[in-house]
Amino acid sequence: MPVISEKGQLMPQSPIRKLVPFAEAATKKGKHIYYLNIGQPDIKTPEIALEAVKNSTLDILAYSRSEGSETYRQKIANYYAKNDIHVKHDDIIVTTGGSEALLFAFGSIMDVDDEVIIPEPFYANYNGFSTASGVNIVPVISKIEDNFALPPIEAFEKLITPKTKAILICNPGNPTGYLYSKEEIQKLAEIVKKHDLFLIADEVYREFAYDGNTHYSIMQEAGLENHAIMIDSVSKRYSMCGARIGCLVSKNDDVIKSALKFAQARLSPPTLAQIASEAALDTPQSYFDDVIEEYVERRNTLINELQTIKGVKVAKPKGAFYCIAELPVKNSDDFAQWLLEHFDVNGETVMVAPAGGFYSTPGVGKNQIRIAYVLNKESLIKAVNIIKEALKVYNN
Amino acid sequence: MPVISEKGQLMPQSPIRKLVPFAEAATKKGKHIYYLNIGQPDIKTPEIALEAVKNSTLDILAYSRSEGSETYRQKIANYYAKNDIHVKHDDIIVTTGGSEALLFAFGSIMDVDDEVIIPEPFYANYNGFSTASGVNIVPVISKIEDNFALPPIEAFEKLITPKTKAILICNPGNPTGYLYSKEEIQKLAEIVKKHDLFLIADEVYREFAYDGNTHYSIMQEAGLENHAIMIDSVSKRYSMCGARIGCLVSKNDDVIKSALKFAQARLSPPTLAQIASEAALDTPQSYFDDVIEEYVERRNTLINELQTIKGVKVAKPKGAFYCIAELPVKNSDDFAQWLLEHFDVNGETVMVAPAGGFYSTPGVGKNQIRIAYVLNKESLIKAVNIIKEALKVYNN
Ligand SMILES: Cc1ncc(COP(=O)(O)O)c(C=O)c1O
Ligand SMILES: Cc1ncc(COP(=O)(O)O)c(C=O)c1O
Repeated sequence: MPVISEKGQLMPQSPIRKLVPFAEAATKKGKHIYYLNIGQPDIKTPEIALEAVKNSTLDILAYSRSEGSETYRQKIANYYAKNDIHVKHDDIIVTTGGSEALLFAFGSIMDVDDEVIIPEPFYANYNGFSTASGVNIVPVISKIEDNFALPPIEAFEKLITPKTKAILICNPGNPTGYLYSKEEIQKLAEIVKKHDLFLIADEVYREFAYDGNTHYSIMQEAGLENHAIMIDSVSKRYSMCGARIGCLVSKNDDVIKSALKFAQARLSPPTLAQIASEAALDTPQSYFDDVIEEYVERRNTLINELQTIKGVKVAKPKGAFYCIAELPVKNSDDFAQWLLEHFDVNGETVMVAPAGGFYSTPGVGKNQIRIAYVLNKESLIKAVNIIKEALKVYNN
Repeated sequence: MPVISEKGQLMPQSPIRKLVPFAEAATKKGKHIYYLNIGQPDIKTPEIALEAVKNSTLDILAYSRSEGSETYRQKIANYYAKNDIHVKHDDIIVTTGGSEALLFAFGSIMDVDDEVIIPEPFYANYNGFSTASGVNIVPVISKIEDNFALPPIEAFEKLITPKTKAILICNPGNPTGYLYSKEEIQKLAEIVKKHDLFLIADEVYREFAYDGNTHYSIMQEAGLENHAIMIDSVSKRYSMCGARIGCLVSKNDDVIKSALKFAQARLSPPTLAQIASEAALDTPQSYFDDVIEEYVERRNTLINELQTIKGVKVAKPKGAFYCIAELPVKNSDDFAQWLLEHFDVNGETVMVAPAGGFYSTPGVGKNQIRIAYVLNKESLIKAVNIIKEALKVYNN
């Protein structure tokens, strides 16, 4: 019998999916689950996007251009311009989700055994993309005590080797909710220029910046043109995760040329979803105002409720819709599974993501969980109450 | 300035896209072009598929399961059963086009520097997927004189090394149009079993088998369960290339487990397109009967017309919608570009794919072109006439 590859064996399982069988078993037993484990918002997709697909008159669902349709890329460039990001449509390659943009970026700038430095905790699927690309993630730890702010620049510098090709940040952060300041981005800009590295910024949560903070993109930083690669996506912005549309943006021609070759090999991003995504760009500002207001309320509710639990430490997120909470438990993998298997309050329980999977340093984050505040306030209050009651029982 | 990866530099440009700038320039000058260069059919997508999307009532365009929606996978399994292929829905992973299924297969069974043997000429993007995966294609030549039948099994055997992990075939073939017989598949089955290799079959053109020949899938071959990986796609079957839905099918659990991890990292295949693809499975047989009849007529027209040109040799395709023609020219890259830049008949010219890009042995196929018969008969007749007239001028 032929055996699969080492790579296939090493590919990590998503930490969010590991618990799915336990959730399915709990559901079968009739338990109601509050899903705080994944970034699938309950927010409605803008009607304008869904309507555009329904109104489309195409009778052949044909390939689009590999780099995405011309009109869509033009419109994306306009959208960026409004966000003070000035790029041409030729600096943009439309991808199948931000996920594919990350893969194209990794492939374009790193060879096997090259290294990318990433502040941890980080979006868990960076592990999958790095394994798939045969490159190594070098983590630099950021701390819950600092709200997961940028680690001191010396911490990065210590980790740079001849194999280092890039620094990757997620801004605002999943799972941390941290929003980097302009000063932090400038520190990163300096270090990548000094060491001739790429700076990849995963900005798929750009719109989700709270408390009057504005998002500062790496694409706004003058002098960084040849270093900056931005990853973007419609998934969270318009609550249309299932579209599978994202993009890779860079003013470095070689990066775009290379990414285009990866794009050509897989022919084109999805056509119907491009129609929806192009229309979504006309979503009125009021939609975002409502969504942001909703998330801020959810965040405040969640944080307030969590802070009522003895022994729980929580970072206050300034963006995205996740937060990391430290629990008075030894092993949050075990706790999360136990919640699904053995605990309920009036037939209800909670699914959370154990945070260990968001760290690449072994053992770190073992007492943390990630909560996605993608449910309404009432559900969040109930869910946190379940965690509170659960901790009383679990710790005995 | 940071430099891109060796991989990014090595990624091949699609041979089909190289000429696009020349086509665009010709169009700007007012020339009408018959596009015979790409496999984008002019056939209408089944209405039932497009209607399903329009009738969908979802208000949140959410991620689907990473492996594809449960109901869709069930229905695919039923479709296969009707084609005498017996698999469970758990043997199927829905992918973003057959393209992604190929990437997942490569990643699951090959590590860096491993080898896959492929009869050439082959689908050019296998080059891109192998470069992206860091693996090497070892070509075994098939000949226009034999209609591109399976090369003798000894030719494969000679190429097997400890690094060989798989044999990849495309059946029916792009660009050859060759349909492998049951006996040929059985010969391949023997050799992969003997040497403990995987057999990947790209069967995205399964429905396109002509002249009363039936397609024999590697999934029908008893005893091959652990070796067989089938690649499939809705792109050509339902003329819905822009959906970006395909699948990877295998009865080897380890392969499915590994492919699922690749699938989880990129979250999910497109949701709208899955709705369309699921509905497409109810396309009435009459649709296929009409389409096949249309392609057979086109093929006959194309071959007959080509055979009227002195010095042109052509293989008779038994499937898919491509054919390779050998022309009385030294360099078909140059000829194809010249057609766009310097030739027309009454303001009309033709875009073909130079066949060199479908071979991996350097220099081979330099006098061949690939023609996709994706246009109607009248257009094909005009297009071949343009080639005929062009050859008279070009060779002087
Ligand atoms: C930080 C981050 N980057 C990228 C992605 C990928 O999203 P998509 O492929 O849906 O655009 C996600 C999805 O959750 C994410 O959280
Ligand atoms: C032989 C072959 N395999 C795979 C594909 C990939 O198709 P898709 O990704 O659209 O399913 C194509 C497309 O032309 C093809 O010709």
